[in-house]
Amino acid sequence: MRTHIKTIAFDADDTLWVNEPYFQEAENRFCELLATWLPPEAASQELFNTEMKNLHLYGYGIKGVILCMIETLTRVSNGTAQLHLINQVLELGQELLNKPIELLQGVEETLEALHGKYRLVIATKGDLLDQERKLTKSGLQDYFHHIEIMSNKQVTNYQKLLKHLDCSPANFLMLGNSVKSDILPVLALEAFAGHIPFHTTWKHELHEEKVEHPNLISLNNIADIIKHLD
Amino acid sequence: MRTHIKTIAFDADDTLWVNEPYFQEAENRFCELLATWLPPEAASQELFNTEMKNLHLYGYGIKGVILCMIETLTRVSNGTAQLHLINQVLELGQELLNKPIELLQGVEETLEALHGKYRLVIATKGDLLDQERKLTKSGLQDYFHHIEIMSNKQVTNYQKLLKHLDCSPANFLMLGNSVKSDILPVLALEAFAGHIPFHTTWKHELHEEKVEHPNLISLNNIADIIKHLD
Repeated sequence: MRTHIKTIAFDADDTLWVNEPYFQEAENRFCELLATWLPPEAASQELFNTEMKNLHLYGYGIKGVILCMIETLTRVSNGTAQLHLINQVLELGQELLNKPIELLQGVEETLEALHGKYRLVIATKGDLLDQERKLTKSGLQDYFHHIEIMSNKQVTNYQKLLKHLDCSPANFLMLGNSVKSDILPVLALEAFAGHIPFHTTWKHELHEEKVEHPNLISLNNIADIIKHLD
Repeated sequence: MRTHIKTIAFDADDTLWVNEPYFQEAENRFCELLATWLPPEAASQELFNTEMKNLHLYGYGIKGVILCMIETLTRVSNGTAQLHLINQVLELGQELLNKPIELLQGVEETLEALHGKYRLVIATKGDLLDQERKLTKSGLQDYFHHIEIMSNKQVTNYQKLLKHLDCSPANFLMLGNSVKSDILPVLALEAFAGHIPFHTTWKHELHEEKVEHPNLISLNNIADIIKHLD
């Protein structure tokens, strides 16, 4: 199998660099703002409900999360929250957008080792400008032939990506931390997938069942892919 | 010149379908919400100031506009606005995201006439999911080889687009309503541009000076491009 891989796509958030811990930190601070009305777990659940209600409209990314936090704050407080709390939520969002990029262990050496031998692309969800800015900040952009910001990571989205890259599933390997978004839809297309677990995952991305598939490689960290491809 | 064109890129908002009038309607309603504190022109200017301050963080698109409306409301009211006004702003945003698509005159016949003879692409700014949804709603997606949602439309963004499309500037024609975003950066690359004026333009996109350039075609409406290409 491995000798047929020509294009390797990398998820970005929590595969190349730290992301979910920043979101969780922002969410914890948001839940503190709601402490007058709800305990933290209930506040978190209310936010999640708002996010799921609006996902078809807002899509993924920080801007949608902040709009959902504001909507949750007005609902949970029953219209009684002080306006300065809204400002604190807006600030949480702007801080998230300004976070530094912290590369995960092994990322740069892995890209260095694969660059030139494979066509490397990024395939990630999120806000367009935010993901572009993170890539620029990461200093990794020269490793990549192409950056695809996707509105979702379902089978049809990967079909479009493969068509767009003019790449057959047999030549395509996707690496990422989310079984739901980076692994299952890719395997459904008979392409190859490498799962690199990250220590924390957004509830919406959770997939509890164990996946077994001949095209799936389980990795402990990103650098392990090199020996699988040799 | 015309015989060398191989790829034609279309701006989407206010070139293929109505957009800016919906934004202006939303902005007018937003200014009414601020009537307690400011007359409409001043409220509009405050919103514009917030948008310009945050553009480097939020980029283009509805989600960023709504976040800017909320920030403007809290600032202008000096923290005294009722929380239900925040909800009304959120609703304005969700209504914008749910607007129907109204194709501009001549769009479908033009795409029909050019399809198969040229590679047709969309090159547009805005929120990723929102633009994808508008394209789906428009029913036009089968005319297009590729959709590029761009975080900005400056010279470097078009350079990336041309590289990505593997297209030389001499073979590229961009059609759009914004002189600033669709015409000037394209002419700077020695590619070709066709300007199709729309009756209303966002202040940020305004370009007052008349442009003259051998690679610029001025069109009264989109269908006029057909005879220029024959």
